[in-house]
Amino acid sequence: MAFSTIEWDDNRIKLIDQTLLPNEFKHIYCDDLPSIWEAIKSLRVRGAPAIGIAAALGTVLGIWNSDAETYDAFETELKSATEYLATSRPTAVNLFWALDRMTQTAEQNKHLPIPELKQALLTEAETIIEEDKAMCRAIGQHGMTLLNENDTILTHCNAGGLATSDYGTALAVMFSAHEAGKQIKVFADETRPLLQGARLTTWELMQAGIDVTLICDNMAAQVMKEGKIQCVVVGADRIAANGDTANKIGTYNVAILAEAHGIPFYVAAPTSTLDFALETGAEIPIEQRAAEEVTEGFGKLTAPKGVKVYSPAFDVTPASMVTAIITEKGVARPPFTESLKAMQNA
Amino acid sequence: MAFSTIEWDDNRIKLIDQTLLPNEFKHIYCDDLPSIWEAIKSLRVRGAPAIGIAAALGTVLGIWNSDAETYDAFETELKSATEYLATSRPTAVNLFWALDRMTQTAEQNKHLPIPELKQALLTEAETIIEEDKAMCRAIGQHGMTLLNENDTILTHCNAGGLATSDYGTALAVMFSAHEAGKQIKVFADETRPLLQGARLTTWELMQAGIDVTLICDNMAAQVMKEGKIQCVVVGADRIAANGDTANKIGTYNVAILAEAHGIPFYVAAPTSTLDFALETGAEIPIEQRAAEEVTEGFGKLTAPKGVKVYSPAFDVTPASMVTAIITEKGVARPPFTESLKAMQNA
Repeated sequence: MAFSTIEWDDNRIKLIDQTLLPNEFKHIYCDDLPSIWEAIKSLRVRGAPAIGIAAALGTVLGIWNSDAETYDAFETELKSATEYLATSRPTAVNLFWALDRMTQTAEQNKHLPIPELKQALLTEAETIIEEDKAMCRAIGQHGMTLLNENDTILTHCNAGGLATSDYGTALAVMFSAHEAGKQIKVFADETRPLLQGARLTTWELMQAGIDVTLICDNMAAQVMKEGKIQCVVVGADRIAANGDTANKIGTYNVAILAEAHGIPFYVAAPTSTLDFALETGAEIPIEQRAAEEVTEGFGKLTAPKGVKVYSPAFDVTPASMVTAIITEKGVARPPFTESLKAMQNA
Repeated sequence: MAFSTIEWDDNRIKLIDQTLLPNEFKHIYCDDLPSIWEAIKSLRVRGAPAIGIAAALGTVLGIWNSDAETYDAFETELKSATEYLATSRPTAVNLFWALDRMTQTAEQNKHLPIPELKQALLTEAETIIEEDKAMCRAIGQHGMTLLNENDTILTHCNAGGLATSDYGTALAVMFSAHEAGKQIKVFADETRPLLQGARLTTWELMQAGIDVTLICDNMAAQVMKEGKIQCVVVGADRIAANGDTANKIGTYNVAILAEAHGIPFYVAAPTSTLDFALETGAEIPIEQRAAEEVTEGFGKLTAPKGVKVYSPAFDVTPASMVTAIITEKGVARPPFTESLKAMQNA
């Protein structure tokens, strides 16, 4: 990609402040735990894989200046950092996956002197980033086989380069198809309330030279009815063992529309998004967001003062509405309970 | 209602500028044809019945200062006014219905001296307003019989007092139920791009003391899945002979969601919204709106400069998804081809 969403830079985390896009392309630097926690919470960095990377680098930040002289003291600081980061956003499983992985890395290297242990944790975070880049490319390669020449794809929210370290998940499918010379077009849901589709997805696709048309979320049904859409590709924040998929609010809506119009509905996500601890999506915690994101999201009040607002950040699409799940290891088809397990073990 | 949406006042049309709500409650005055045309086009006055009233009063405005001395000269001016007003918005049939009625009134009174003919036209416009008020109340009375105690109703866009001269159509059902002492709650879709739900529907319901919760359009599916919604009530801009219903973009989306969740979907509209000239909804012209309403609707750019936008203002919900159509004459059930005809002739 032409940009690096999030990286370690000179003892700090450097990231694109995505709340400013597309009007301003600006990097910010986080040099302590509260600043990276705030960046995750405020969606300056967002998207399940990128949140995982932010959590891994955040963990490094949490122990980077540690004065601990024993592993026990170091472990206490590490645990305090990971527990704090775990409170930033509850739905994306990649956050917890990355924190677990960092904790395990420390455990496995507890024999090392503290400075080397710190370095081992940074190396692990950078390995997560490298794996993420490879994951994006692999998802793109597997996913593009599902697209036909002249297909128009509907996507929701942003599962692009900005949601990962590189190429995205859902958008990787489109980038790969485009690079391979397939003629494709994209319709992007604007994705209220925070407009990740309008602000980020259109921006990424336009930069890549892919034909993209922006619509409001409530127009997708009409666009499908007019025969304009051949398939839907979205990302995921957490996928239960049975294939139930948590993703940005509105995804379940799109899945119902796709089913009603006989359009395939694909989910693209790394295997780190799979949560085998959850049998079904009913167990996935759904983050509730502040009313102001709905009523004051554009710098001015767009609803009466004091109006009640209900704003779940995610919804869960039942596995029965998912045509296939594209991971870096291949394309899983129903029944997902079996195909996802096989994929995980592959 | 506590406010008058649109009325004739001292040789001018006085109306609430709905683009400023809820931040500012302000009346504007239109004293010539271009200003009322602009008010309709820019949605300062909107909602199918209110557009009909604006067209009727606009017609009066078009001939009010006429110097014509013969009926032929007068008729030429009248025709020029109605043809001009007909170009303001293409979808709501009430606009054409009101213009036709004004033309017929002139025809029927062609024997009168011009000053009396002008007065007859004003009287006709005021009759349309009075009928509209009575229509709202009757829709409310018929519609409230469909609501059960403790129901929560989802509505889309604004089919309230601001869309009519008085009590609304879809919202009339809620106002009537509330006045009759029924415990009801409402979820209001914000209704992108112009946020009539967020700005107008919540405002009207809060003023009436009805419990209302605002959601983004893409949250309706999740809210239904959580069992929060017992029925949907929306307005209509044009209803074909078979019951196919054109209404604000996103209504068809809601209808699909309601069907998927087994929730009744009601349309509330006056019989002036019925267009028996159209066999099905496929013949209803769909207005396309400017890209800026999607990308700059909140005073700042929320998408990349130059992004392609597709923005139909309306969609058509197939009659098969409509549980019942509530008019001022009663509740029509499928098959609508028969029930609507019977209702029209009642």
